[in-house]
Order: sequence, then C-alpha cells, then structure tokens
Amino acid sequence: MMNMTSRMMDTAMSMPGMDMTAMNELVEACSACEQACTLCADSMMMTDGMGKCAAMCSDTADMSNTMMRAMLRPTGYDMNSMMAMMQATMTMCNACADECMKHADMSEQCKMCADACRQCAMAAQKMMDTMKSMMPTA
Amino acid sequence: MMNMTSRMMDTAMSMPGMDMTAMNELVEACSACEQACTLCADSMMMTDGMGKCAAMCSDTADMSNTMMRAMLRPTGYDMNSMMAMMQATMTMCNACADECMKHADMSEQCKMCADACRQCAMAAQKMMDTMKSMMPTA
Amino acid sequence: MMNMTSRMMDTAMSMPGMDMTAMNELVEACSACEQACTLCADSMMMTDGMGKCAAMCSDTADMSNTMMRAMLRPTGYDMNSMMAMMQATMTMCNACADECMKHADMSEQCKMCADACRQCAMAAQKMMDTMKSMMPTA
Amino acid sequence: MMNMTSRMMDTAMSMPGMDMTAMNELVEACSACEQACTLCADSMMMTDGMGKCAAMCSDTADMSNTMMRAMLRPTGYDMNSMMAMMQATMTMCNACADECMKHADMSEQCKMCADACRQCAMAAQKMMDTMKSMMPTA
Repeated sequence: MMNMTSRMMDTAMSMPGMDMTAMNELVEACSACEQACTLCADSMMMTDGMGKCAAMCSDTADMSNTMMRAMLRPTGYDMNSMMAMMQATMTMCNACADECMKHADMSEQCKMCADACRQCAMAAQKMMDTMKSMMPTA
Repeated sequence: MMNMTSRMMDTAMSMPGMDMTAMNELVEACSACEQACTLCADSMMMTDGMGKCAAMCSDTADMSNTMMRAMLRPTGYDMNSMMAMMQATMTMCNACADECMKHADMSEQCKMCADACRQCAMAAQKMMDTMKSMMPTA
Repeated sequence: MMNMTSRMMDTAMSMPGMDMTAMNELVEACSACEQACTLCADSMMMTDGMGKCAAMCSDTADMSNTMMRAMLRPTGYDMNSMMAMMQATMTMCNACADECMKHADMSEQCKMCADACRQCAMAAQKMMDTMKSMMPTA
Repeated sequence: MMNMTSRMMDTAMSMPGMDMTAMNELVEACSACEQACTLCADSMMMTDGMGKCAAMCSDTADMSNTMMRAMLRPTGYDMNSMMAMMQATMTMCNACADECMKHADMSEQCKMCADACRQCAMAAQKMMDTMKSMMPTA
C-alpha cells in the first residue's frame, strides 16, 4: 500500500525543493499512528481507570489523520499552516506517548501505541526541519 | 442542536477554572467552520482555477473537526496539546479566510466561508487567552 | 450557525427535485449526533464497564460526520452511494441509541446521546423516503 | 506499519469465529483507499471539469476512514452496523472507481485511485461473506 501512495505522490507532485522522502515518511507515520491510537483507545475503553488514555489516543488519532490528509493535498500547501499543524501533531503525539508509557508494562497496546506516537512526532519534527532549511532567511 | 451540546457539556464537565462559555463558542465555531469549508470546497471543485482554495478549505474542515472533537473529550485534556491545536486551528483558519477573500466578490460561498473561518480563528484565540490566564505564572 | 449552512446550501445548490428541507435537517441531525456521540463516548471512557458504549458512540460519531460531509458535497452526489450511506447511518444510529438507552437512567449523557441518535436515524430515513419518491419507477 | 497494526489487532482481539486475515485486509485496503482518494481528489481540484470526481473521491476517503476505524474498535462491534457500513463502503468504492475510470487514460492519479477503490470494495465484500457464513441460519 505504501508503495502505491508513494508512487502517487511522486506522480502528483513536482515541488521544487520539497523533500519527498520526508513527506512520505510523515504520511506513513501519521497513518500508523492513527491506527495504533484507534486500537489503543478501543482497548483502553474496556480497561477500568484508563479513560484519560483512551481520550488522548482518540484526539491523537484525529490529529494524525488531519495531518496525513493535509500532506496528501499538495495543491493547498501553505507554509505557516503546515508548520502549525506539524507542531500540533508533534506536541500531541509526544503527550500521548508519555501517557501510554505510564502503563506500558500492563498493556501491550499502550506500548505499541507509544512507539507509533514517537515515530510520528519524529517524522513531523524532521519535516519541520526540512521546511525551515528551505525557507529564505529574513 | 447547540443547546443540546451546550447542556451535555455542562452536565459532563466540572472543570474548575475552565471558561465553559469560551469552550462552547469554540465548539460551535469549529462546527460552523467545518460545514462552511466543506461546502465551499465542493463549490470550488466545480470552478476552474480554484484548486488551491478547494484544497485549503478541505484541510481547514479537517482541522476544525479535530479541534471540535478534542474540546468534546474533556477526559483527555492536556494543556500543551490543546494550546498547539488551537494555534494550528487559528493559523489555518486565517490562511483559509485570506485565500477565500481573494475571490469573495465572485463567489458567495467563499465570502461566507471566509466569515466562518475568521469566527473560528477568533474563538480559538479567545480560548487560548482564557487558558493562558488560568496558568500559574512561572 | 445552522442558518449560515442552510443559506450556503441554498446558494450552492439548485438541485431539481431535491428536498432542500430534508437535506438541511439531515445535516443538522448528523452534526448534533456527532457531537453528542463524541461527548458521550468521552464520558463512558471514564465509566467502568462502559467500553462497548464508548466504542459504538465513537463509530457513530465518525459515520455521522461522513454522512454530513457527503450531504455538503452536492457536486459528487451519486444516488446509490447516498442511499447506502443513509442506510448505514440509520442502522448505526439506531444500534447506538439502543445501547445508550440500556443505561440512560444512570447517565444523562447516554440519554441525550440516544435522543440525538434517534433524531439522526429519523432524518436519514426521511431523506431516503424523499429520494425514493423522486426516482423513476422501473 | 501494517505489521504493527496487524500485530496490535492480534494482541487486542480474541474474537471467536472472526476471520482475522479478512479483517486485516479490510483495514489495509481502507487505509490505501483513503490515501489514494485524498491524493486523487487534490489532483482533480487542479483539473478543469473534474469537480464530480474530486467530490466523489472526498466522500469515499471519508467513508473508508470511518470503515477502517470501526474495524479497529472491536469493543463496539455490532453485526448489523458492520454489515451496513461494509455495504456503504462497497457501493461508494465501486461508484468512485467507475467515475475515476472514465478519465484514467488522462490521469495516472485516477487510474491508481480506481485500483485502490476496487481493492477496497473487494475487501469489504470478502469480509461481508465471511461474516454471513458465521451467522446462525434463521
């Protein structure tokens, strides 16, 4: 599947100076994060006392999906909007990973979800670094 | 409808120090913004040369929905995450409003969408101000 | 807000034979249902033994949002797709309302959510009836 | 990524009689379909006269995401709801593929999107067959 999306992105976009590898990695990381967070939230709904974790995972699933879709709409790229979204993705993924890690030894779901969140935060950070390096210095 | 959500929020939450009025206003503004952006994007899809507007409206619809849902999950509130999401909502809504205003005289859809985006950006700003005023000074 | 969406829909669409009142009612009902389900799911995440309710509400929130957005994209209307989506919305809203009613006396959230789900199921049914009456008899 | 989701699903679920392979395939197919539809819609927004395709792809992206998330919330499985959602996914994916195939020779995006939609429709059909075979005969 990822090969298909990656090929489609290559076909769709010719964005001078944009790092297509970093973009592809962020799309993949967001997709994995949304899935892991949705599964983890579901699992936590069944576990007493895990409401905060379930709600944070639900928020992070939504944010990851929103970030992923925005990456897949190159026609609408707006630098400030992308940077603010990446910042939000990074912040939420790290907060969600911190929460999940609190009970990672009790739940395999939380451990895998925390990993996916960290990966996504790192991919967003990397993309932000790439974009900053492209921007003209004032 | 809004009365119902507002009543449900009052019933669900007892959040010491949280400004319920600002929260309700942000939920309503996000909902209106998502609807206006979705309709405007659809209209722009039919209009030659309006791809950028359609894509930006689609991104903003997703972000507004993600922001709205996060407000409706008080169990998962994390201050840094909420602030970053509000910042992203504000930035994207203002960028989308700017884009829509470029052709507001050609399209009633764009004009109404720009208004809904500005309202949403203002509601996010107001909520951020409220939250900052609650935070202990370092 | 609803007045704005309703005005935008009137401006955007001239759909011969389409019942704009039924469409507006379905958009409003979906929006209310998504909000009520999201709030109810959050509340159930905090309540021991309510995982099934939280997960069903989360599914129904997603479906209502998908239905609402499809109504707000008249450019893409495809009769069979709309009918199948309305059927799914109706089925899920009724199942979610049944689940919420099981513990409506313990939770004000569930009671309000069940009401919003029933309203949404009815709005979808009404829209389906309207569309069927427009279709040519074979 | 898929390995992770697949492992998480295996860990999370012990659903007697459920075909985990078919479930995993539907999750993957929905994810691929959402991505392909979002990219294709973006590309069509830039192409004159392709509004209907862009709007149908946007609807199908939403439906695929809703279907995927519901599969990732086993706690909330309700047989009738799942069947109705799979029917909607199948109907919309096939309608979207038909639309995209009309201009597949002009656009590589549409060709790849049509493929992803057909795959998703088939995965939904397969899952429905699996579920029907599990149900007790009346």
